[in-house]
Amino acid sequence: MPKINRVLIAAGIHGNETTGIFLVKKFKRFPNLITRSSLKTETILANPQAIELGKRYVDVDLNRCFSPQVLNQPQPNQYEAKLAQKIYQQIIASRIDFIIDLHTTTSNMGLTLLLSSDRPFNLRLAAFLAANNPEVKIVYTTHNIEKNRLRNICPLGLTIEIGAVAHQVIDPVLFAKTERLIFDSLDYLENNNRGLTLPSTDTATVYFLNQTIDFPRDSDGAIAGIVHPQLHGNDYSVLNPGDPMFIMFDNTTIYYRGKTTVYPIFINESAYWEKKIAMCLTTKKQVVIS
Amino acid sequence: MPKINRVLIAAGIHGNETTGIFLVKKFKRFPNLITRSSLKTETILANPQAIELGKRYVDVDLNRCFSPQVLNQPQPNQYEAKLAQKIYQQIIASRIDFIIDLHTTTSNMGLTLLLSSDRPFNLRLAAFLAANNPEVKIVYTTHNIEKNRLRNICPLGLTIEIGAVAHQVIDPVLFAKTERLIFDSLDYLENNNRGLTLPSTDTATVYFLNQTIDFPRDSDGAIAGIVHPQLHGNDYSVLNPGDPMFIMFDNTTIYYRGKTTVYPIFINESAYWEKKIAMCLTTKKQVVIS
Repeated sequence: MPKINRVLIAAGIHGNETTGIFLVKKFKRFPNLITRSSLKTETILANPQAIELGKRYVDVDLNRCFSPQVLNQPQPNQYEAKLAQKIYQQIIASRIDFIIDLHTTTSNMGLTLLLSSDRPFNLRLAAFLAANNPEVKIVYTTHNIEKNRLRNICPLGLTIEIGAVAHQVIDPVLFAKTERLIFDSLDYLENNNRGLTLPSTDTATVYFLNQTIDFPRDSDGAIAGIVHPQLHGNDYSVLNPGDPMFIMFDNTTIYYRGKTTVYPIFINESAYWEKKIAMCLTTKKQVVIS
Repeated sequence: MPKINRVLIAAGIHGNETTGIFLVKKFKRFPNLITRSSLKTETILANPQAIELGKRYVDVDLNRCFSPQVLNQPQPNQYEAKLAQKIYQQIIASRIDFIIDLHTTTSNMGLTLLLSSDRPFNLRLAAFLAANNPEVKIVYTTHNIEKNRLRNICPLGLTIEIGAVAHQVIDPVLFAKTERLIFDSLDYLENNNRGLTLPSTDTATVYFLNQTIDFPRDSDGAIAGIVHPQLHGNDYSVLNPGDPMFIMFDNTTIYYRGKTTVYPIFINESAYWEKKIAMCLTTKKQVVIS
């Protein structure tokens, strides 16, 4: 088991995801909440201008900027490209070895942990959190839309993605649940550092994100229908071949034409509108914890 | 009873309130949906640049620009000030005599009708819609924050305010309910024009908006607490003196210190964050329909 010496709690990568931003503001004011004896915890409000403006980003999505291309750009023009380089250097200089990145979604995804590295340590922590709280779902992905994220800088860590909550809204119940997940993660890392026996499970349910679905469009490219009422709000529910997926403005229904059962997530995530994503499809598997 | 000759269905006054925008797009494609024999129905997507950008507004909130000051400004600089003058002239030139203005809120306000004129005709229509559907709530206000709205151009009309829904998200159930309210309103106007006897009620429950409440703040003006979990999502519920209102970051509770029972609405409306409004307080009254 690796020893974790320095944890970074990041929020405000997206300036309008207010829950994480206010949790970090709270931790800055009451640092004892995130103090653990065997590790150092730092916090960052990642995109100050976007937070000030209450926007996702100023020029481009910061959480797509942690790519070698952007990080190696000499003198980038875009605000977020500059910011990504600065944050990257800061994380390397501080020798951060675990990142907790706080996000919210307008999709009804409850408490989701997003993993982008298949390190057993990450999966064990996620499985521990899920065993602790049946509301927790684990999503694993190497899909393109999930690349070049802040969390990818460091092989260990996780993204906490909470919803449904609108941008610039704090749902106090989801706020408290996010805080609980952070505390439980820090306690787990602390116990791991001290060599204490950690509760473990043999397997975990993991949702593998492997496909994105756009809205139906007419011949001009304009959106011609919306998510079907049977599907909206039902993230992580079963979608079988032949189930309704969209309702068109002419009131006809578009059905799911895949060959296998899937579990849609990020259904009606507002920030994915511009990315032409109405939802993402996952497959559900039991994974053995090593 | 006045005869209504020309109805305007307006959406996109706020460019990120997507439900109304897509209803108007649907009506533009299927105009027979809003055709009634005794009246002419027009539609407008009010703030095209904000809609394109997926933002509430470009320079300033368009729905605060319909004031004599802004409408009489010679050569205004702000995009929305120009737009307000154009829309105002268009509404006068088209001799619109009834405006249905479509909005959404991140607050859990269900199907709300906002009236800003005390004309008996408006109240009768609202009472009819509320009697038809117990989910409908009627809000009446002359509060400053509700002045200079599009709907004030025309003495007859109403604002349909639907929630909870995040910006740039279409909840298909709320989409269909908004559409139903539009159809029922047009049918009511049509029946009124034809002199048909309209179902009526003697009284209606009306919520009078008369106060706004800011978030609790520290000495630097920074937000120091969030809406209490007992209150968030409970728009139109009773708030009695002594009930919890906010939870502070130090985990203490702020209680409602008013002297009378109120019914909060617009709880955690994200667009009101910048206006320093955490919620609005209303009083609830039975109003006799004349």
